[in-house]
Amino acid sequence: MPTEFQFIQNIKKKYGLKYVGDDCAVLPKDDKTDMVVTADMLVEDIDFRLDWTTPEFLGHKALAVSLSDIAAMGATPKWAMLSIGLSESLWNSDFADRFYEGWHALATEFNVELVGGDVSRTPDKIVIDSVVGGEVPKSEAVLRSTAKPGDAIFVSGTLGSAAGGLKILEGGERFDENGPDATRNLILRQLQPQPRLKLANTLQSQYLVSSMIDISDGFSSDLAHLCEASCVGATIDNVPVDENLHADFSIEDAFQLALHGGEDFELLFTVPQEKITEAEKLSVFRVGIISSNIEVIDLARGTKTTVLRPKGYRHF
Amino acid sequence: MPTEFQFIQNIKKKYGLKYVGDDCAVLPKDDKTDMVVTADMLVEDIDFRLDWTTPEFLGHKALAVSLSDIAAMGATPKWAMLSIGLSESLWNSDFADRFYEGWHALATEFNVELVGGDVSRTPDKIVIDSVVGGEVPKSEAVLRSTAKPGDAIFVSGTLGSAAGGLKILEGGERFDENGPDATRNLILRQLQPQPRLKLANTLQSQYLVSSMIDISDGFSSDLAHLCEASCVGATIDNVPVDENLHADFSIEDAFQLALHGGEDFELLFTVPQEKITEAEKLSVFRVGIISSNIEVIDLARGTKTTVLRPKGYRHF
Repeated sequence: MPTEFQFIQNIKKKYGLKYVGDDCAVLPKDDKTDMVVTADMLVEDIDFRLDWTTPEFLGHKALAVSLSDIAAMGATPKWAMLSIGLSESLWNSDFADRFYEGWHALATEFNVELVGGDVSRTPDKIVIDSVVGGEVPKSEAVLRSTAKPGDAIFVSGTLGSAAGGLKILEGGERFDENGPDATRNLILRQLQPQPRLKLANTLQSQYLVSSMIDISDGFSSDLAHLCEASCVGATIDNVPVDENLHADFSIEDAFQLALHGGEDFELLFTVPQEKITEAEKLSVFRVGIISSNIEVIDLARGTKTTVLRPKGYRHF
Repeated sequence: MPTEFQFIQNIKKKYGLKYVGDDCAVLPKDDKTDMVVTADMLVEDIDFRLDWTTPEFLGHKALAVSLSDIAAMGATPKWAMLSIGLSESLWNSDFADRFYEGWHALATEFNVELVGGDVSRTPDKIVIDSVVGGEVPKSEAVLRSTAKPGDAIFVSGTLGSAAGGLKILEGGERFDENGPDATRNLILRQLQPQPRLKLANTLQSQYLVSSMIDISDGFSSDLAHLCEASCVGATIDNVPVDENLHADFSIEDAFQLALHGGEDFELLFTVPQEKITEAEKLSVFRVGIISSNIEVIDLARGTKTTVLRPKGYRHF
């Protein structure tokens, strides 16, 4: 069977779908504006576990993952729809109210209005589909398919945090407001990710980026997606590992989490040579350079260079 | 606990959501056009059973239910997003390909383009979220909240069919291309509903309707939704029962299915007195009249009038 990415490529080719393949679809709105839309499904025991999180965190995360897709297009979110399926027993609790409270707190921060959705019953597990629509000046959406050889590669923050938080949760620890700072920070990055909308807006409005994607599956996988879409390769010589990881993980494990761990929801973007000085004024990390070596990603570490293969998250 | 309708009303009030409450949200697009968007979640063993349907029928239905919401606004569908969660074993079958084939056949009929969505894994059950966006001339979306006392009430077709088909499936029969006509017709209305987009477009463009809703939960429930939203009541004196029902059901059972059975996806709409002659030229059924008796629905049957209470489908 194909992976989910191959399946989507097959469907795209078979039915000639021209809007599919980036973080969001870009649709014409009016003379000056394009609309972007995205959908993200979260399934209990696949994408989250109820005993690891709270309804408020889950509501936050359901919106955050879609806002991160909007950010990756350099767009501004405007409206959202939320479909949620719950078991009868969860319906008969305060779950839904608390979930919407978490959702709404983040929505308010970015002026996103809930305009619709659906409420359904499920036999057992929770399922959520989060849809967000946004706007971007006409023809200025930042795509993942427009990186050019020679462009510098940046990420918007340190990496591996959310995957580290996941490992800690898998190990049995839980979020504790009064726990050690490093552990709490990692768990929070997993349960309550922060979409990088403000930075994305700066990058887009100052025309600093040639391409962008958000890191949802993992740095190695999302860089591979960007390289594939742009028909380019890359050389990575700097991986900014979240220092919080060093309290709970070895240096090598922390490095691997930064390379392949999913759900950091940082932005991965490319900057043309003449804009690098401008970009470096922002709180971002330069990690490498785009090459013409199509779909080959080299990882230079000390004196050794290896090929970096995508090992990030995939459902299938 | 509140019903799902009360819950949505509570959320709407609590967070001041002005776009929530109709079949679709109506959002400004450009100077001449409004955009409408809707989302519908379908969950295995709640909204459908895999051994009753085919992947193609399910793909068709996932889109049809959302197109019916677009029709109810008098709008024209334009684009769609489809999120689907599947178990690993279904992923390793031809299910997804056949599902998209059924989806796509209906999409092509109405020029709807797939622009995005998500693919996820689930522990067990299938879950689908269907999102459709459409367009309608500015400020001309047909709402459910604008019926006026004295307006005639119409439905776009005979009723009870899909609920009859469901009962037959529950009884153990399955769709059979060569089975008796009546039974096959009912099962098809359940598995492969047809959204009434062409009729809705005529009603909207000729300004024949004062309000509209689609019959998804059931005639009695959706009429109650319309009356509640419009602060009116209704008297019903004609219920067009699908004649196919009489092969498998008693006259009384068929009548109850027509009153309360969900998923016919016919349109329920109101027509001002001066437009009735025009509306009756279409293939539609006049069923009653809007009254000023707020939220009271009378059912006149022969010489007897009773109060019709909503007994249609609800998840909670």
